[in-house]
Formats: sequence, C-alpha cells, structure tokens
Amino acid sequence: MIKPQILKGFRDSLPKDEIQRKETIRVIEDSFSSHGFVPIDTPILEYTEVLLGKGGGETDKQIFSFKDNGNRDVAMRFDLTVPFARFIALHENEVNFPFKRYHIAKVFRGEKPQKGRYREFFQCDFDIIGTQSVYSDYEIIEMIQDSLNNLGVSEFKIHVNHRQIFNSFLEKLNIKDKSTLILREVDKLSKIGFDNVKKELISIIEDEDKVNKVLEFIKVDENEDFLTTLDRLEKLSCDKENCSRLKDIYLLCSSVLNSSNLVLNPSITRGLDYYTGIVFETFLDKLPSIGSICSGGRYDNLASLYTKSVISGVGASIGLDRLLAALNELESSNEKTNTSDLVILLDNNTLRPWAYQIAKVLRENDIKVDVYCEDKSVKAQVKYAKNNNISYTITLNDEMKKNNKVNLKRTSDSTFFNDLTISDLITTLEKELF
Amino acid sequence: MIKPQILKGFRDSLPKDEIQRKETIRVIEDSFSSHGFVPIDTPILEYTEVLLGKGGGETDKQIFSFKDNGNRDVAMRFDLTVPFARFIALHENEVNFPFKRYHIAKVFRGEKPQKGRYREFFQCDFDIIGTQSVYSDYEIIEMIQDSLNNLGVSEFKIHVNHRQIFNSFLEKLNIKDKSTLILREVDKLSKIGFDNVKKELISIIEDEDKVNKVLEFIKVDENEDFLTTLDRLEKLSCDKENCSRLKDIYLLCSSVLNSSNLVLNPSITRGLDYYTGIVFETFLDKLPSIGSICSGGRYDNLASLYTKSVISGVGASIGLDRLLAALNELESSNEKTNTSDLVILLDNNTLRPWAYQIAKVLRENDIKVDVYCEDKSVKAQVKYAKNNNISYTITLNDEMKKNNKVNLKRTSDSTFFNDLTISDLITTLEKELF
Repeated sequence: MIKPQILKGFRDSLPKDEIQRKETIRVIEDSFSSHGFVPIDTPILEYTEVLLGKGGGETDKQIFSFKDNGNRDVAMRFDLTVPFARFIALHENEVNFPFKRYHIAKVFRGEKPQKGRYREFFQCDFDIIGTQSVYSDYEIIEMIQDSLNNLGVSEFKIHVNHRQIFNSFLEKLNIKDKSTLILREVDKLSKIGFDNVKKELISIIEDEDKVNKVLEFIKVDENEDFLTTLDRLEKLSCDKENCSRLKDIYLLCSSVLNSSNLVLNPSITRGLDYYTGIVFETFLDKLPSIGSICSGGRYDNLASLYTKSVISGVGASIGLDRLLAALNELESSNEKTNTSDLVILLDNNTLRPWAYQIAKVLRENDIKVDVYCEDKSVKAQVKYAKNNNISYTITLNDEMKKNNKVNLKRTSDSTFFNDLTISDLITTLEKELF
Repeated sequence: MIKPQILKGFRDSLPKDEIQRKETIRVIEDSFSSHGFVPIDTPILEYTEVLLGKGGGETDKQIFSFKDNGNRDVAMRFDLTVPFARFIALHENEVNFPFKRYHIAKVFRGEKPQKGRYREFFQCDFDIIGTQSVYSDYEIIEMIQDSLNNLGVSEFKIHVNHRQIFNSFLEKLNIKDKSTLILREVDKLSKIGFDNVKKELISIIEDEDKVNKVLEFIKVDENEDFLTTLDRLEKLSCDKENCSRLKDIYLLCSSVLNSSNLVLNPSITRGLDYYTGIVFETFLDKLPSIGSICSGGRYDNLASLYTKSVISGVGASIGLDRLLAALNELESSNEKTNTSDLVILLDNNTLRPWAYQIAKVLRENDIKVDVYCEDKSVKAQVKYAKNNNISYTITLNDEMKKNNKVNLKRTSDSTFFNDLTISDLITTLEKELF
C-alpha cells in the first residue's frame, strides 16, 4: 500500500473550492473578453535557458528544473510574463498589434511553503502590448476596476505612481545612479515602515539631507487628492511630460469611471527593474493587510532576451489565490459542494425512465439537475440531497407518475409546491431560481 | 540573445485556438454541471511513487520525473485517473457518495511526438464513484450523449460491451486464464484487422477451433440490432446476469435518449486490466478514422493502491485535442482571433471619454466591446478591426458627439445603420447579435 500523500506546498482542490475558483475565473474571463482581450496559453515545461536566461540554471533554487529523458535542461514556468515574452518573440507575425491578451494558468515555485503561499498557484495576467499609448495605460486601470466590480468587489483603492517621475526627481538630487537600489527600498515602505526605510536609504545614499528629501517625496497623505499630489510631485521632479501623462489618465478615469478609488501614491515603485512607466497596486478597503490583489505597470521592452524587436506594453496580474481568500473572508461565503439546482429522488426504480425524462426537459430549460443514481431507500436519498446542500428536491412515486404531476420541495424551509405538471415545475423553478 | 524555442512535443496556443478550446471546455463543463457532476483539481506534480507505484520510477521512460530541490522523487501527472485514485484515498471522508466528479486538466507524457500527439495535452475525465448501480452506467452514457449534443455533434455511435460477458465466454471455452492477453489482442481489431488478430490469438490460445469461436463471438454485424446481438452473446456466454444488466441500460437509453446510436460491439474490450464491467468507445460517423473521442468503463476498485476501502465506479474520458481537431474538420470552422462584437474607432482623441462611456454602457448590456487604444489614423484603426475580423465598428467623430448619435457598420457587407442614439445602438446590436 502506498501512502496517498501530496507534496509539501501543493494541494488538492475539493469541489467546494474548485466550484468557487471556476466561477471566479469565468467572471474574470468574461470581463476580459468584454474589453477585447483574448486568451493564449503556453507550455508548462520550457527550456531552462528560455525561462532563466543563460547560466541561470544552477543559481535559481526556486524553480523546478531537471534534465528530461532527451537530456535537455527543462524547467516548469515560474510566472506567465517570461513565457509571454518568449511567445511574442516567436509569434510576432501571427498576432495583431496592439495585442490585448490574457493568460490564466498555473505556475510553479520551489519557495519555502508558508501560510497562504504554495508551490503551485494560479496567475492571471493581462497586458496590452505593441503600443506606448497613454490610453492603453488607462484601459488597464479600467480593466482592473471592471473585473473587480464584476466580482462584486467595489471597495478598493488602486494606488498608482510613475517610475520616471521618481527617477527625474532622483536625477535632480544627483543620485539617479542609485535609482534601482533606492526604488527597491522605497517599495518596502508599507512592509517595513518609515524608520527602517530611512535607515536603509541612509546607507545607500549616504547623505541625510537627500534622504529626507526622498522621504518627503514618497510621503503618502491620505487627505490630499490625486491632482494636488501630482502638482507637488511635478514641482519636486520638474518632470512635466510624465506628470502630464498621469494627469491625462486621471482625467479620463474621472470622466468615465469611479476615480475616487484612484490614489497617487509616490511610494509605490514595484521592486522589479522591468517597469519603466506607470505602476499600480490594488488594495481592498476592508482587508488592506492581505496586500495588493492586482499589480502591474508599463514596460519598455518585453522580449529583449529573445528578439531585437522592441515591444513595449502595459499590464497587470490579479493574485487569484489571494483574491479567493479575500472573497471568502468578505462575504459570508456560501460554500457549495454541488452546483445542482435540483435533485430527483425516486420511490422505486420503475420510475427511472420518467425521472430521466423530467431531468432532460429541465436541463433543456437551463436547470441543473442531478438524479439520484443508486438503488437505496428514500431516506438515504434525502440524506444525499442534504449532504450536498441542494436547494430543491422532487421525490417521484407511482401515484405522481399516474397523474403526471410532481411535488417540488424547497429544502431550506421545507416549503412544498404540490401537484405541478412538468410545465408548472419548469415555471416554478424558473421563478425560484432566476 | 536566446532563441525563443519551445520543447519538442509542446506547443503554444494562439488566440484562435485558445478561444475555441475555452469555448469547448465551457460547453463541456456546463454539460457536466447540468447533470450534477462537480469539478476537482489535483497538483500537476506528485511523488513519483504515488503516480507509478513502488519501483516504477526507473522503468517508466514515458513520464517526466526528477528529483526536486528537497531530493524528493517527483513526477508530472501522466493522466487524471491515478491522481483521482490518490485524491479519493486522501479525501474519502470529505466527499459525498455517490460522488460525481469531473476534472479537465493538462497531463504530460514523454512519448515520441507524432502528428496529433503531444507531450502536454488535455484530459477531460468524468466519473461516478462509490456505487455499483446500473443507473450510474446509464448516466455516463447519457452524459456522453448530452455533452456531444451540446457541442453540436449529433452523428456519432457509442460502442458498448461488457468485459464480464466476454470473460464468462472464455471460461466456457476453458481459456479464462489467458483472458488478459486475449482481451488485449481483441481490442486491436479495428487497428490491425481480423487476420492479424487471428494470427496473434492462435499463438496465445494454441487451438484454432477455440480461436474461431472467439472470432465468431467478437464479430461485429452492423445490420444486427443491439438486442439481437445481446441475445447471441447471452447464448454463447451463458452470462445471464451481465447480459440482463446491459439490457437494462439499453432499455433505459431507448426510453429517454436516442438509442439508435448505441452499438453493442463485442470486440471493444479496452486494453486496460482496470475495467471490469461495461466498457465504451465513441466514434464520429463522418470521421471514424480519428478513433474514439470518448472512452471509458466500469471498474471495481479505483484506489486499491492507496486504501483498503473498495471504491467502485464508472467513468469516461473525452479526448479533447482529438475532439477539437474533429470539430475543425467537421464544420467550416469560423476561426476567431478576437471575441469582440464591436470595436470603437475614433477620429480624434478628444472623443476618448465618450468612446469609453459608450463602451461601458454596451458592456452593461452584454455586448463585447474593444476600443482602439492607439493614437493612429482612422485607416490604421479600420485595418485593426479587419485584421481581427470584428463584425461591427463605429467610428466616432465630432459631429456625432455633438448630436449624440453614431453610425454602426456591419463589416461583413459594409451595411450602415446611421444616426443611432446610444439606446438605438444597443437595440440594433442586440437584434444583430442575439
């Protein structure tokens, strides 16, 4: 006998979780496709060199890499950005730019498993590439707002910033050469706090006066509105061009969307060197502690590792596992172990053909029907309906068959709808369900 | 620069393929959930021992296995049946029996890549476990019929057989001990032909008279109806019990479904030792050559490798890649590179807020809208709509904005619907699209 264990950091998805995950993904997919985004997929396994760059194989302990049976160095993808870059280098001539794509799929990292951190998890990326247009920046914000709204989440803030504005400011202070190190520290503000960031910055910049100016720049004043903060940043950075770009985005948001949830937060820099323009993070008003549930930004050169073509773009990634955890915490989540609207129970098996005929007609009317499939007592059948938390049952018997009428039971309050013809049954269920 | 290559036997999914795959999977998922089946998921990576059994690690060259950074022997799943067995051994007390589950996910095999065979591909399994009920056998057939019908496929035959009936027959011939070998050969009938099977059977059974009887038993007579064949098999096997079970299934199909596409085919045995009762394969009338697109059967003991609990069940697996290839061959497949119903083009960028407001209202009415996001000529914008094969466009200009009216263009025949208010636009699009 082999122990039916699973690997540390991996997990099964039981129906109650998988039903919720699939429903959430559908809402997100429908949001994407209602905005002109199209799906792609890439292999889970790729050449290690393609994923990590030359010589990365030995150094990166976090990825699952190995030699396959053909002695090739292969690895499981650890994000969806690198495969997307490789994808676009390979299929540049097969897609139409500006290219709006989304990709929702599993990625793998050999990180130390922690609470809420797994070695196999979902990413949900969406990008508009092949354009530097300010409107594509706006459309990513619109996409974040719409997908969260469609998921029933309305209380959130999108924190935006522009990396170039920060860099222009550092240039004025003559510390632009330390930009990467500084941005990385600043990005930790919400995690490690003001004092620790200050300490780190002093060791990097080695000039307390300049450190104080940087800290003044990244100060977040929650009472200050977007345009006032932007004004302040423009004065400090003298970066007219990029401030005007951010202003255009904000004004477009104001005239189309809910702009009250846009926050200009100069401390948001996103750790990655990759980003070159606008960056954003999204926080839930009621659960700020879980961190950003959707982050991203603009980049100048997506696929430079694989092609000479310069492909810029803007995109974001929804943290699906984090979002699911949040949705469960926010709503008194109705845990469904079954998606059936109705289960048909049977007094005896001669009623089977009738039961399946009724099920067929109901399904044609978009009602989800389970038929109890074992030869057991009605009591056992009722228990099955109860265990699966199914909202409606009908229990067929010979008398009903003779009259071609059934009794529908709403299980939540044991209300009966009696003597329904099949056509009444459909009408009643439609009224109850839709 | 790194070559943006992908591994042999793996492939990217471009939007036109991914859109079709996602739509097909949704139809299948909706079919499953309309019959009371619920989804689960399991990790792609598992302990090698769990997937292959003890000592399997070195022998099976077809699987992707390796040592992870924690020196554990791990492997990528090669099917969804073994993980399901492991899943149920682990979560036996967390699911309600009879348990109807489906699982649509990627699996990995290091097979030699051939035309239409990949190292990463989808499986789509559905099973009812924890019951030996004849009705669950019926429900799997019902599920096959319904999911194919929902996909628009109506011309197919489900070939069914019962392994026990064949075994009873072999017992009568006193060659039951060679059953596994014989069944495996018989299963090749459609692939290698009658004469080759005969040759092989002679070398196994070593008695030409008995071989001829076996060949007589497995003869497929297309003019013979289900019950006549069943009668013949019952006489030859004397297996009343199992023949009566097949008859019950057939009669239930006759009274609820289209039973004209059920064929009793005694040569279908399914190679695997695993199956113990009814077995089935599904062939498309117009494309028999691509082989079975949905196969399965009944098994006595799903999880014997991991638990003492005896869990029997019945299930089938849809060959998703094969089915997609078939759907493309059968229909004059409409290759969509975009799912938008409409793209909004703009004469100038001052019209942006209006464009996004219109898009918003249309989306609220379930119309999928792309807004052209770059600052380019109307000509370039029209080309984008054309390249993406989007059916409707509106091109906003200042005059329209002033009057708050737009012109809608149906791109297929350049028909215009002029001077529409936004509310007219919605009505017109709804009439055109839904």
